[in-house]
Amino acid sequence: MPRAWHLESRPQGKPTPANFALKDVALPPVDDGMVRVRNLWLSVDPYMRGRMNDVKSYVAPFELGKPMEGGAIGEVIESRVDGLAPGDLVQHMAGWRDETALPARAVNKLPNLGIEPQRFLGVLGVPGATAWYGLLDVANAKDGETVFVSAAAGAVGSAVVQIAKAKGMTVIGSAGGADKCDYVRSLGADHAIDYKAGPILKSLGSAAPDGIDVYFDNVGGDHLDAALAHARNHARLAICGMIGGYNATNAASFRFIMRIIAARIRIQGFLVTDYLGRMGEFYREMAPLVASGAVTSRETVADGLEAAPDAFLGLFEGSNTGKMLVRL
Amino acid sequence: MPRAWHLESRPQGKPTPANFALKDVALPPVDDGMVRVRNLWLSVDPYMRGRMNDVKSYVAPFELGKPMEGGAIGEVIESRVDGLAPGDLVQHMAGWRDETALPARAVNKLPNLGIEPQRFLGVLGVPGATAWYGLLDVANAKDGETVFVSAAAGAVGSAVVQIAKAKGMTVIGSAGGADKCDYVRSLGADHAIDYKAGPILKSLGSAAPDGIDVYFDNVGGDHLDAALAHARNHARLAICGMIGGYNATNAASFRFIMRIIAARIRIQGFLVTDYLGRMGEFYREMAPLVASGAVTSRETVADGLEAAPDAFLGLFEGSNTGKMLVRL
Repeated sequence: MPRAWHLESRPQGKPTPANFALKDVALPPVDDGMVRVRNLWLSVDPYMRGRMNDVKSYVAPFELGKPMEGGAIGEVIESRVDGLAPGDLVQHMAGWRDETALPARAVNKLPNLGIEPQRFLGVLGVPGATAWYGLLDVANAKDGETVFVSAAAGAVGSAVVQIAKAKGMTVIGSAGGADKCDYVRSLGADHAIDYKAGPILKSLGSAAPDGIDVYFDNVGGDHLDAALAHARNHARLAICGMIGGYNATNAASFRFIMRIIAARIRIQGFLVTDYLGRMGEFYREMAPLVASGAVTSRETVADGLEAAPDAFLGLFEGSNTGKMLVRL
Repeated sequence: MPRAWHLESRPQGKPTPANFALKDVALPPVDDGMVRVRNLWLSVDPYMRGRMNDVKSYVAPFELGKPMEGGAIGEVIESRVDGLAPGDLVQHMAGWRDETALPARAVNKLPNLGIEPQRFLGVLGVPGATAWYGLLDVANAKDGETVFVSAAAGAVGSAVVQIAKAKGMTVIGSAGGADKCDYVRSLGADHAIDYKAGPILKSLGSAAPDGIDVYFDNVGGDHLDAALAHARNHARLAICGMIGGYNATNAASFRFIMRIIAARIRIQGFLVTDYLGRMGEFYREMAPLVASGAVTSRETVADGLEAAPDAFLGLFEGSNTGKMLVRL
């Protein structure tokens, strides 16, 4: 019997394993135009925390007592549609489960680029596209500029570091702990800041004595305040995520917010979903960088469907390096 | 003997009269290429608070023990330069004093538009241009959009209200107290919010149940947080001033900062000094609006050089409606 993780209760603040329940699910019959898919890889992502709340946001909330959703890569095991055959690898949004039946329009067959399938959940998927469009379009980062990126060892951040280096920028990445900082440096970052080793405000000032032109924000809070403090004139801050705030119930505090005026800083929030219509541009430019090894990626892999909630909760503890995945 | 206000000491937090001292000054001789000017109107402005601190900013700090500076309108009483004759009215930056001697390049002769001279310190001067470029260029506000502006009874805010109405926008202005709100409504605002009568977060929600497209920020703090809370998708927040923070020594707190992402909000700080090269465009479009009465302005006038510090300090108490001026 197929099984799926259900949202058992809505978290107050930080989620716990008790918010999730693994239950049997009955699949709909595979009618004309549908496929049955056995999942191979599940994605767990910080944005899912927002869907656990019952509030209107850019994606609908998960329904209480219903199966959760998320990006996944699976193998077609039964098909009643032309163009999809058993053995084909597909990407879809029916994650958090081992098996699903879907209409063909809800799945995308993976292009044959000679690249491992799980990369389409990472550096060649939503995290990679988030890095690409956030850095180059939202922040309009240019050759020769100094870019600061937080959570630089994460799925999005590690792509930002490498894209920025490939485009001729000076890159400062922050991450928690010496191992992650080593990884960030191995990606080509000019400086890696261990934010657990001291106040980010001071570390960023040392790493960028002349200030930063761009900040790619994955964490909010003190990092964002430090970026405001060290922003050069006309700096652009692309706000991709605020993982530090997703579980917070209190307000964020900013000592350097007033610098926005004198330095003419631009802060711009964005969603990668606004760029999905431009994914062709991303594949064209990013796939060769991945194929050539100019852009590498690392995964933190949890094994088995049972591990999914812990893998998700680990995102908020910083237990991943690169993309966090669940392998079935 | 000419007299000028000197910066006697640097304030910690809110300035007090003890930070200022009125002293005699010796004027330089009126050499070739110079004029002597008797001031008629002095401008006091919130940005001067920043110049009282000894920190690098977009304008140099006032020097301790030296005369202060600021916008002023004066009459030429002696000239040793072609093109300027006794009786001519000029604008210059040697305010905070009754008389000055300046090189001709430091003064601008007022254009003869049939408009009272003190308007060139207000609706046709820096405050008016700040409103114009902040609303139309920085925030890119368009016909049919909903605009929220704080300090709407102030020099900049009252101009924002009227320019926005002249351009076909729905306008919500906030101000402190019933009298100022009456004034804001008299300027054409669709809604006036008395921020002293209740939490701005709630009042803005009532005035703009469908949210706001643009926020013109003169105050920061709770107003900015309320604007983040009620921002529609792709809202633009032009940050002109944060008078609520100029005297603050602690951090600003934001409960709704995370909405930047889901609503793709843009926050952009700006300085009118970046637009001084485009003043011709402003005069061309704004002067007819002023001449026709479509854009009116009000002044709060303090009399006599002795009154200048109190007039300045009053800005932080909200004791002005419209442009705060000192008449000599």
